[in-house]
Amino acid sequence: MPHIHIIGIGTGNPEHVTIQAINAMNASDAIFIPTKGPEKDGLAAVRREICSRYVTNSKTEIIEFSVPKRATADRTYLESVDAWHAAIAETYVRLIEGLPEAGTGAFLIWGDPSLYDSTIRILERARVASSFGFAFSVIPGITSVQALAASHRIPINLVGKPLELTTGRRLVEKGNRAESTVVMLDGELAFSKIDDPDAEIFWGAYLGTPDEITRAGRLADVADEIVRVRAEARARHGWIMDIYLLRKGHDFDDL
Amino acid sequence: MPHIHIIGIGTGNPEHVTIQAINAMNASDAIFIPTKGPEKDGLAAVRREICSRYVTNSKTEIIEFSVPKRATADRTYLESVDAWHAAIAETYVRLIEGLPEAGTGAFLIWGDPSLYDSTIRILERARVASSFGFAFSVIPGITSVQALAASHRIPINLVGKPLELTTGRRLVEKGNRAESTVVMLDGELAFSKIDDPDAEIFWGAYLGTPDEITRAGRLADVADEIVRVRAEARARHGWIMDIYLLRKGHDFDDL
Ligand SMILES: C[S@@+](CC[C@H](N)C(=O)[O-])C[C@H]1O[C@@H](n2cnc3c(N)ncnc32)[C@H](O)[C@@H]1O
Ligand SMILES: C[S@@+](CC[C@H](N)C(=O)[O-])C[C@H]1O[C@@H](n2cnc3c(N)ncnc32)[C@H](O)[C@@H]1O
Repeated sequence: MPHIHIIGIGTGNPEHVTIQAINAMNASDAIFIPTKGPEKDGLAAVRREICSRYVTNSKTEIIEFSVPKRATADRTYLESVDAWHAAIAETYVRLIEGLPEAGTGAFLIWGDPSLYDSTIRILERARVASSFGFAFSVIPGITSVQALAASHRIPINLVGKPLELTTGRRLVEKGNRAESTVVMLDGELAFSKIDDPDAEIFWGAYLGTPDEITRAGRLADVADEIVRVRAEARARHGWIMDIYLLRKGHDFDDL
Repeated sequence: MPHIHIIGIGTGNPEHVTIQAINAMNASDAIFIPTKGPEKDGLAAVRREICSRYVTNSKTEIIEFSVPKRATADRTYLESVDAWHAAIAETYVRLIEGLPEAGTGAFLIWGDPSLYDSTIRILERARVASSFGFAFSVIPGITSVQALAASHRIPINLVGKPLELTTGRRLVEKGNRAESTVVMLDGELAFSKIDDPDAEIFWGAYLGTPDEITRAGRLADVADEIVRVRAEARARHGWIMDIYLLRKGHDFDDL
């Protein structure tokens, strides 16, 4: 039976790769690298750089594959995601079929495979769809949440208090409720739409890469600057990945 | 001016260490390892193992130090934490004073330095208290949240939905509200005190170590078993570190 490693590789800095990830890459017959079109070139480049730095096993093949696109015409959101995941699962089945008998394959996942990523889900689906069956394991990676905190050199939570991880869309819908909220997947500048001028924001884009940008301050003071810096960077690179922490209150202020 | 690295080392598996962490350890004149008394021997052993595996620079010294205890008599919680942090800050100042001029020191932090850990806070405090000043940087590490998800081979969040990280105490106080909640620092079996029989629980103890134990299932079906397994393991080892995800609902069930 083939074995698949789902390997977290961190979010941009090739030094965020773990020893476990390196060992799993070198134990694999093939490493599968997605190519997602121009906006994701930066990401594919990091994956290639990681392979060229750390893959020392000359028998390990690097196989690039193109990820099916999500079709949205004439269907609900749910139908479109469902069909999309099914198409990716089929791609995975073909890649795994191409492995040597009882061979090992690896997918390199941005950040950690458990956080806002569907590879595990889709691979479960591929397993059900495939006629041959395979096993898989998950290798954790540094998330963009950790990268954000490290770049700002801050604790991500207040002492003993909770932390919420959410998306831009939900922040706009629900408002900024928690004492510490990390917002990911925000294409709509959600931080600039909430009414919470005294919250602190710790923002970062392209974290871990040579293009890393960070800003921090009182939301009312820095929101406009972040909007501007973000737009400029996005225009320059053709794509952007950013994340931020919103914090209300201080350590021990409820005691 | 001295430079201090605050290095995340993962939560038990020495292979969760990153290349960046290894490079920073080897660039340090001294690595400071806390010894916290018998219940934490397991943790000190992992730190020593990591040093012996990865520190190849013969000039890097490993310095063990004992962490001051928190005194609780005749003071409020806030006073006791404040005095305790001040005492640890003093210890840090002394350790840093012992470095060669413009030298580099490293603290090895369990998991990631930003998550439910006070080293960053206390080092900021040491910087204010010290007469000489120093710089510091933070190196992210694999958290116990990632280790939990990897061991169970699950996504930690539902598609596009938020994730809450909280403590056992707060779960008991506030109830199980979010769709996905990770509970840490739970000394009081909070999962067994909430009224949410249909929630799924994904539990893990000593994750990443050879003693790792995991259980998963419907809360009403597995809570008693987890309570029993946890008590047995705790008695056997003399200490326990555990974490769990509570999940309500399924992917796409609100569409
Ligand atoms: C599909 S999610 C994947 C998250 C990833 N699995 C992780 O562990 O961080 C993509 C989101 O992660 C965040 N992100 C990932 N890499 C980033 C980086 N290098 N800098 C800033 N944000 C990043 C952004 O919020 C982005 O919208
Ligand atoms: C003081 S916090 C430190 C968390 C750490 N900084 C991290 O990134 O995971 C300690 C809590 O983390 C969790 N934890 C840490 N290591 C663990 C392990 N190996 N297995 C299970 N839980 C762990 C437990 O909930 C424990 O009470």
